[in-house]
Amino acid sequence: MDKSVFTANRRARDLGLTHWRLPPGPLNAITDVAGVCVGHTTLIKGEGPLVRGRGPVRTGVTVVLPHAGNLFREKVRAAVYTINGFGKACGFEEVRELGVIESPIALTNTLNVWRVADALADYTLHHNPEIGVSTSSFNALVGECNDGYLNDIQGRHVHAEHVWAALEAASAGPVAQGCVGAGTGTSCFGWKGGIGTSSRALAIPQQPDAPAPTQAFTVGCLVQSNFGRPEELLFGGVHVGRHLQPPPESKSALENDSGEKGSIMMVLATDAPLDARQLQRLAVRAAAGLARTGSHIGHGSGDFVIAFSTAQRVHHWPDSLLTTQTALADEPRAMQWLLPAVVECVEEAVLNSLCAAHTMRGRTGHVRHALPLDQVAQLLQNPILS
Amino acid sequence: MDKSVFTANRRARDLGLTHWRLPPGPLNAITDVAGVCVGHTTLIKGEGPLVRGRGPVRTGVTVVLPHAGNLFREKVRAAVYTINGFGKACGFEEVRELGVIESPIALTNTLNVWRVADALADYTLHHNPEIGVSTSSFNALVGECNDGYLNDIQGRHVHAEHVWAALEAASAGPVAQGCVGAGTGTSCFGWKGGIGTSSRALAIPQQPDAPAPTQAFTVGCLVQSNFGRPEELLFGGVHVGRHLQPPPESKSALENDSGEKGSIMMVLATDAPLDARQLQRLAVRAAAGLARTGSHIGHGSGDFVIAFSTAQRVHHWPDSLLTTQTALADEPRAMQWLLPAVVECVEEAVLNSLCAAHTMRGRTGHVRHALPLDQVAQLLQNPILS
Amino acid sequence: MDKSVFTANRRARDLGLTHWRLPPGPLNAITDVAGVCVGHTTLIKGEGPLVRGRGPVRTGVTVVLPHAGNLFREKVRAAVYTINGFGKACGFEEVRELGVIESPIALTNTLNVWRVADALADYTLHHNPEIGVSTSSFNALVGECNDGYLNDIQGRHVHAEHVWAALEAASAGPVAQGCVGAGTGTSCFGWKGGIGTSSRALAIPQQPDAPAPTQAFTVGCLVQSNFGRPEELLFGGVHVGRHLQPPPESKSALENDSGEKGSIMMVLATDAPLDARQLQRLAVRAAAGLARTGSHIGHGSGDFVIAFSTAQRVHHWPDSLLTTQTALADEPRAMQWLLPAVVECVEEAVLNSLCAAHTMRGRTGHVRHALPLDQVAQLLQNPILS
Amino acid sequence: MDKSVFTANRRARDLGLTHWRLPPGPLNAITDVAGVCVGHTTLIKGEGPLVRGRGPVRTGVTVVLPHAGNLFREKVRAAVYTINGFGKACGFEEVRELGVIESPIALTNTLNVWRVADALADYTLHHNPEIGVSTSSFNALVGECNDGYLNDIQGRHVHAEHVWAALEAASAGPVAQGCVGAGTGTSCFGWKGGIGTSSRALAIPQQPDAPAPTQAFTVGCLVQSNFGRPEELLFGGVHVGRHLQPPPESKSALENDSGEKGSIMMVLATDAPLDARQLQRLAVRAAAGLARTGSHIGHGSGDFVIAFSTAQRVHHWPDSLLTTQTALADEPRAMQWLLPAVVECVEEAVLNSLCAAHTMRGRTGHVRHALPLDQVAQLLQNPILS
Repeated sequence: MDKSVFTANRRARDLGLTHWRLPPGPLNAITDVAGVCVGHTTLIKGEGPLVRGRGPVRTGVTVVLPHAGNLFREKVRAAVYTINGFGKACGFEEVRELGVIESPIALTNTLNVWRVADALADYTLHHNPEIGVSTSSFNALVGECNDGYLNDIQGRHVHAEHVWAALEAASAGPVAQGCVGAGTGTSCFGWKGGIGTSSRALAIPQQPDAPAPTQAFTVGCLVQSNFGRPEELLFGGVHVGRHLQPPPESKSALENDSGEKGSIMMVLATDAPLDARQLQRLAVRAAAGLARTGSHIGHGSGDFVIAFSTAQRVHHWPDSLLTTQTALADEPRAMQWLLPAVVECVEEAVLNSLCAAHTMRGRTGHVRHALPLDQVAQLLQNPILS
Repeated sequence: MDKSVFTANRRARDLGLTHWRLPPGPLNAITDVAGVCVGHTTLIKGEGPLVRGRGPVRTGVTVVLPHAGNLFREKVRAAVYTINGFGKACGFEEVRELGVIESPIALTNTLNVWRVADALADYTLHHNPEIGVSTSSFNALVGECNDGYLNDIQGRHVHAEHVWAALEAASAGPVAQGCVGAGTGTSCFGWKGGIGTSSRALAIPQQPDAPAPTQAFTVGCLVQSNFGRPEELLFGGVHVGRHLQPPPESKSALENDSGEKGSIMMVLATDAPLDARQLQRLAVRAAAGLARTGSHIGHGSGDFVIAFSTAQRVHHWPDSLLTTQTALADEPRAMQWLLPAVVECVEEAVLNSLCAAHTMRGRTGHVRHALPLDQVAQLLQNPILS
Repeated sequence: MDKSVFTANRRARDLGLTHWRLPPGPLNAITDVAGVCVGHTTLIKGEGPLVRGRGPVRTGVTVVLPHAGNLFREKVRAAVYTINGFGKACGFEEVRELGVIESPIALTNTLNVWRVADALADYTLHHNPEIGVSTSSFNALVGECNDGYLNDIQGRHVHAEHVWAALEAASAGPVAQGCVGAGTGTSCFGWKGGIGTSSRALAIPQQPDAPAPTQAFTVGCLVQSNFGRPEELLFGGVHVGRHLQPPPESKSALENDSGEKGSIMMVLATDAPLDARQLQRLAVRAAAGLARTGSHIGHGSGDFVIAFSTAQRVHHWPDSLLTTQTALADEPRAMQWLLPAVVECVEEAVLNSLCAAHTMRGRTGHVRHALPLDQVAQLLQNPILS
Repeated sequence: MDKSVFTANRRARDLGLTHWRLPPGPLNAITDVAGVCVGHTTLIKGEGPLVRGRGPVRTGVTVVLPHAGNLFREKVRAAVYTINGFGKACGFEEVRELGVIESPIALTNTLNVWRVADALADYTLHHNPEIGVSTSSFNALVGECNDGYLNDIQGRHVHAEHVWAALEAASAGPVAQGCVGAGTGTSCFGWKGGIGTSSRALAIPQQPDAPAPTQAFTVGCLVQSNFGRPEELLFGGVHVGRHLQPPPESKSALENDSGEKGSIMMVLATDAPLDARQLQRLAVRAAAGLARTGSHIGHGSGDFVIAFSTAQRVHHWPDSLLTTQTALADEPRAMQWLLPAVVECVEEAVLNSLCAAHTMRGRTGHVRHALPLDQVAQLLQNPILS
């Protein structure tokens, strides 16, 4: 693996971007939403020609847990939103219907989505042996991107043990980004993409016309980026893609034939007490954040959003028919902050996935180069009118 | 107008139907949900040939108010559901987005839907002069059915004054049914249809495994019925339509040419504290109630549901960012009662619209006959295997 | 296994039902739509107490193939419709987006849905080794019902080999119904449910106002039935459930606790040349057919519809940018037949699933009795007003 | 009216923007799609304080006709897409169901939406006197934005005659932009917004791997812009809003209280032979174009898209049950051009609405200033890193 341009821990805002108006949380990561945990299993094995079932392997799994407890017994409010449904995401129907998440959210490659869902079922049955016998069934929530340019995707190298490992590794705190977990083999705008994250810390006035006291809320995002054509990349508004292209050998026949492949999975978290309908309104805004990076929501790009709120636990076995809950008043006062926070988080998380990724050589000599950050920084400082 | 088979105050359950399992409220009407008010303006004028703009007039307007106060300032939680979108209902987009109703719900004929919406705007602006100037806009919620078989529908005889009159007439208490308000000129299964209503009174255990104490909830429905082919009518499961057909002159060329015309508007009310997502789940079940009456959800039948909960007021000017609200725990304990209640209410409301309607002669000699209740009762008592 | 009331090959219309208005196809099965193939793998193993992972096993897999060729390369137009999203169906997002099916449709139990999807991927990759490498990904379409009352559902006994076996067994011609395939362990209205099928053969005038010549179209349905409470069963309109209840030991603690479990998967096929939007309109009408059998679309019942048309192949590698296709003119002339055909097919398929099923004893001595058809026939001949 | 900065005929690309990759059509207007006609009625009357019902009047109506013929008898394929449903658009339910447009598309102010729909009904009944009598009803398609900052919106000054005038004025050819028609009183990013339009001319290879021959398609867009906060404006990627703000008196109390008001209506036209599902996929991409201009899809911004194809007429009275039609093969080859064309068109149409608008003084001395194009041009040439 070529590590000559290894850029670990580089973030988009290190390049001097200052256009965002809302402050990030302390980690600038989805884990700034208290309780949220992230775990990765990264699978890198072999080099050279593609031998189906043997490799090279450039893939993995990433899990996002809304909290560290038993998610089946203590669900969280959630919504999903499909921008472009050309993808195999599992579990969306039930989130739409019931407005809750009751499993870890897992991300992986396209042809492993069902195995990963099956492993989530294993895991949840292990912790909740009553499922299917004395209580109802269980909804696994899994997203995917196609990493077949670098990875032996047909080999379906993600197994249950890798899902369990990611779940066991899941923790609060800083989030590894770039070529990790489900982002190990993904591509973004012709460069190496991967996992990216970001957050915004909001202070919203509790009373109209009174700036204080304020209520603190956090919005976070984690993406698995795998979309876009090189010429489209927008970096803080600058049309970087018009001036900076990956080396030509990096274009696959695939792309020439049939336009954009790829996808993006976007996971949004907040501690604001929102119901499913409000969370879906947040999810819709992810499309605007995505567009800010240059995406035109390509035909072949399955673009999906999962949003949840940690503010309230929804008990699988509620004590009583009626519950009392805190809700965010509808609507403008809070929404005028929460909605732009989503847009900014998604944009920054995508750019972070590019900045944190290093060059990756995969199957059959295919290479995805790291975005050359020095050149991007130069373009940002002296943007050419484009 | 032929009143020889006038059947005022006849209800479906008077014919001996006993298949419903849940008890009705005291009025067996949507107004059993406390606070809900209903008002009608009935327009019947002229006889003989159709002269566009002059008549004969067989139409009207019906309003349902979730409460008697200022609905713009004190909204209620709501959902809409479109079973078949072949119709002109106004205001659905915003209810989907915001999950509230902020206007009276009005029903009228197809070509008057916009004028009635405009009149609702007049009315709401009158009571809320700040709309559009110091606060945002206003969403009018209006449904419609095509009463053109009896009515000079092109004449668009419903005017703002008729909407205001219905609003002023709106009251709690018993609801006039049959050939009143928006049901004055409508048809159902080839017979005279119109307005129908029904309710269910539920007592749901507050604790699992403990039958008492219980929590009382009410579900109510009001329909404007205007759908169905004669041969399809199901009356409490009995295929009445196979044995009882309206006189042949009652079939219009319209029906012969192009299948079912018509539509049904279904308004559901409850005092259970449900959010928009839960209310939409109730609304979906209206389709099952409708199907029990024989509808196959015809191509040309715009079948729409509006559902609201009176349990919580959503203030246009909320005091504070965070509110505390009571919610019905998700899900099975309460839903196993609320959902069948919707199915039963819708079925009974449609049958009531048929039973309460009297024969109506309209434009160009067109006649819609009242369903002959004696013959129906006989069929119910000696059902032929069908 | 108790076979004392074994009722193989009994169909609902054998009991004397005559209320349907449209004629069935020659097989009264989904395979009346030319090219459609159905295959089952039935898994019955062990008796006695539940030992997770060992049994007893009462489950299986059923596949429906829109045609016998390579579905990935020659897709068919399709739509999905979720009546109640409380279920784990896979593949719906992409059908909504692209309007095609590119895999066999598989049905199984709830906790096996992902393994079966994974097996469909195996199968499709085997026949299309270019997937993921030189062309895009693949969408597996799988539905499920919870058969945990009779089956060791946690054991997840359906494996890839069983999916392959069902695919290899798939054929045109008569369809085995009742306790077969994915219906082996399912329950319906407290009785033994399972697989049911039905069809309608339509002759629709090609010209308005000219009864001949006609265009022949077929509509077919296959269901996996697993829903409903005993007291709700409607049989051709007769409230059989009010007079005929399964023995009391057949009620599970599960049902007492939390209302209806269950689900229904409904697969609709037609040879009418419909696009995705039109197919979705057909799918919506499945809810009306379902309601005719007594369902109130229970809270816990994941009710899903998949509809496809065999009339046109959608090539994965189209030759040319522009294609010429035959389409059914919008709308009333054909829809007034196609839509009721859906309602009738779904109702009859559900009733057939009940009639064809035999009594099944499963895990921990749980029993689902076959619906006693003689008693049903008696009730149909002498219906008590209900 | 202050015309000192009158900027008629100025377009965004005159400022030197070169980032778009696809060429515009000859007019760079929605009317580049052959057959499409646009008409405006502009209402400007009075100055000074607001007197409800008298003025000042700064509003109007804009109509887009998919073709110049009888749209009821010769419908076009269409789709709608609601990004944020906080708005009063009429007619969306039926377009979703039937996939056609059968009326002119009209745009106006929020509180006039129903009157304008009613006028469309007048117009359509005039030309199709059979509606409601011997054939079915009619669906009016109307969108709106809130121009209440400049306009006496409560006065509802748009009347039927103004709709008829716009319809009579509708023509192919160049489209007046800025403060005309429905854009007369609207605001965008705190500046004067209004009507904007743009187009893209595509040449798509007919055969894979063969650049010639190509098939020519056009995509066009017309917007009514009325959204955004000043600090958000993005102009070809440059964060103009961070450096250029309207004079402070231009901020209304309204905006301070409750965040963004506003909305945007986006009308997309194409001559590519797309069905309703494909058109909806185009409509989804409008959100990406909108986001490129800086919108975060504000809470109070009703953002709606209407898309149609002129390639095929859908006859109200089809001759025959089966029709033959040309369709664009699914999917990547054409979609990789059509989808970015939508994104570019929407972005450019919004920017054009800003560039073409002149400063407008309205009710109570409220002023919306024209975007100072010279300053924008300077920022574009020397972009500050933002």
